[in-house]
Amino acid sequence: MKDLCKEVNFDCSEKGMQVQSMDSSHVALISVVMHESAFSEFKCDRPLSLGMNVESLIKIMKMTGPSDSLKIMHKVDSDLVSFQCEGSDDRISEFDMRLMQIENEHMEIPEQHYKVVAKMPSAEFQRICRDLKEFGETLQLTGDKNGLKFAVQGDIGSGNVLLKPRESEKPEEKVSLQIHEPVTASFALRYLFNFSKAAPLCGTVTLGFAADAPLLVQYDLESEEKGHVKFYLAPKLDE
Amino acid sequence: MKDLCKEVNFDCSEKGMQVQSMDSSHVALISVVMHESAFSEFKCDRPLSLGMNVESLIKIMKMTGPSDSLKIMHKVDSDLVSFQCEGSDDRISEFDMRLMQIENEHMEIPEQHYKVVAKMPSAEFQRICRDLKEFGETLQLTGDKNGLKFAVQGDIGSGNVLLKPRESEKPEEKVSLQIHEPVTASFALRYLFNFSKAAPLCGTVTLGFAADAPLLVQYDLESEEKGHVKFYLAPKLDE
Amino acid sequence: MKDLCKEVNFDCSEKGMQVQSMDSSHVALISVVMHESAFSEFKCDRPLSLGMNVESLIKIMKMTGPSDSLKIMHKVDSDLVSFQCEGSDDRISEFDMRLMQIENEHMEIPEQHYKVVAKMPSAEFQRICRDLKEFGETLQLTGDKNGLKFAVQGDIGSGNVLLKPRESEKPEEKVSLQIHEPVTASFALRYLFNFSKAAPLCGTVTLGFAADAPLLVQYDLESEEKGHVKFYLAPKLDE
Repeated sequence: MKDLCKEVNFDCSEKGMQVQSMDSSHVALISVVMHESAFSEFKCDRPLSLGMNVESLIKIMKMTGPSDSLKIMHKVDSDLVSFQCEGSDDRISEFDMRLMQIENEHMEIPEQHYKVVAKMPSAEFQRICRDLKEFGETLQLTGDKNGLKFAVQGDIGSGNVLLKPRESEKPEEKVSLQIHEPVTASFALRYLFNFSKAAPLCGTVTLGFAADAPLLVQYDLESEEKGHVKFYLAPKLDE
Repeated sequence: MKDLCKEVNFDCSEKGMQVQSMDSSHVALISVVMHESAFSEFKCDRPLSLGMNVESLIKIMKMTGPSDSLKIMHKVDSDLVSFQCEGSDDRISEFDMRLMQIENEHMEIPEQHYKVVAKMPSAEFQRICRDLKEFGETLQLTGDKNGLKFAVQGDIGSGNVLLKPRESEKPEEKVSLQIHEPVTASFALRYLFNFSKAAPLCGTVTLGFAADAPLLVQYDLESEEKGHVKFYLAPKLDE
Repeated sequence: MKDLCKEVNFDCSEKGMQVQSMDSSHVALISVVMHESAFSEFKCDRPLSLGMNVESLIKIMKMTGPSDSLKIMHKVDSDLVSFQCEGSDDRISEFDMRLMQIENEHMEIPEQHYKVVAKMPSAEFQRICRDLKEFGETLQLTGDKNGLKFAVQGDIGSGNVLLKPRESEKPEEKVSLQIHEPVTASFALRYLFNFSKAAPLCGTVTLGFAADAPLLVQYDLESEEKGHVKFYLAPKLDE
């Protein structure tokens, strides 16, 4: 998230928390949804938006350990949000962060009918994006009967990685591919590489794409019922 | 040490070696004492001071492995100090370093009667200093019946970490706290973070402080009989 | 290789592939020989040179995993060389790299009769070069009855590492030394440190030197039958 946006609104309601934000160049959109069930306790009396600076938020998150419990609190009419972190030992960390007023028009993202839907190991997606961005700026993504092809062209030559559907007992090693119609579309590798850094969230990532439509890159939070992080990226039409 | 001073005197006597040096801004003082018992062999016929450049010393120390034996030698009237390092294999490394004349007034540090003395895991102290320095320049340290509180204020908000006394069979996981009188005092986080990098020396660190007095941050070398590294830091009075 | 030359020719013949290149200042020469037996399959119908940019080649190599199989192909009259990499899973990566025309006069390197030949752990050679380059620019290398001595002089003093012949059941821990005649010669540490980075190729490294002759630093590819990487470095005569 920190590579895409500087300030975001955490929209809270009785259903949970969510963030929706476009990057500054309006090419990419990030949508984070944390349902009530993603929290061990959740209470929200009236809907409101908490505007936060992403970099400050990361500094606070760095104070929390992976097995600590974290409590996020906001009182009506306060301009602070409080983070309280308790470790298994007797250490208690607290931080009160000043809230910001951030203008944000919430967009309804229409349910897309993707022609190609691929589910693959998130670490492998990250590696492909990292490797290919060395050779060029644009990824040509193709889904057809041969598999899922990531291709790039640049000054020093051209390359591609081809993934075929692959069975595995471990879901995070499987590659599954639904092709309703063969599709080739182009996307900026720089964004894809930033998206792919979300790999620690989930062992698998789902890609959905169609001609002339935004690409979906989706990571679930453990299970889809708890929530997800969805990235959308506009295609590069002229290439 | 290298973050605080560029050149230091190693004062040698029959009792061992010690270094005492203030940082360039005269806010912090480091005092290293290595008693004779800290060495497998020690001999010093007459007291003298060996002036060394800290950065050069570190380069030489990097040539030694953790299980190598190191011999430090200086002959009367020589302007060199010799380092001889023998590994378990048949490798022998030697380095003759040119000594420097460094002016240094040795100060007597009066025994302080600290109002609060806390002993805690050195890794935890390092982590708290590292995390909190992201939020502000000044640490407000409070010792009272609630525990030991590290608080910071800055542009993005205010935070604190509270440590309570904690029992453990492992001494390096214990937190013990003696409060003769509740105290709150302020110190520059930048220095504390530099001090806290000495954590590999010892699993525990001792903090001693009082109102309007320098803070003591002490690491023992295995046991206090072998020696110690003590850092002193002047309080920030106006905050 | 990447620290020494920007563009190199891979000379292919029915015997295998080899690279020979001088660095830009003509002080060092690298010679890589990969015999036919180093490949699981090898076919070359007619001798030719494939000119490649080293940095681009490294980017492509980064796409291959340590247990992947790599196929390098070039078709007659094509200005491309193709790299095809297959992992144990069903991932196939391909890259077509544009070839370059690189002028390169192949030199015959006369077989040298070194006065001193030393074989030692490659990791230890790397460590000595890394440590000593901190103290000065020139390594004085001496082989005599005392052993193999790496000495350096600089502003802060002078140092040396002495290695004695050492037996071990593990070949990569042995130090063996043949002294036909005692020799002392001087070489630029910066180059030696770059050479020593080839340590992952082979557990041992062989040094050969004589007075007023280039130093040989040789790493075998598993066994000498498969090939080798040889570095040659002109001595520093005036020091």
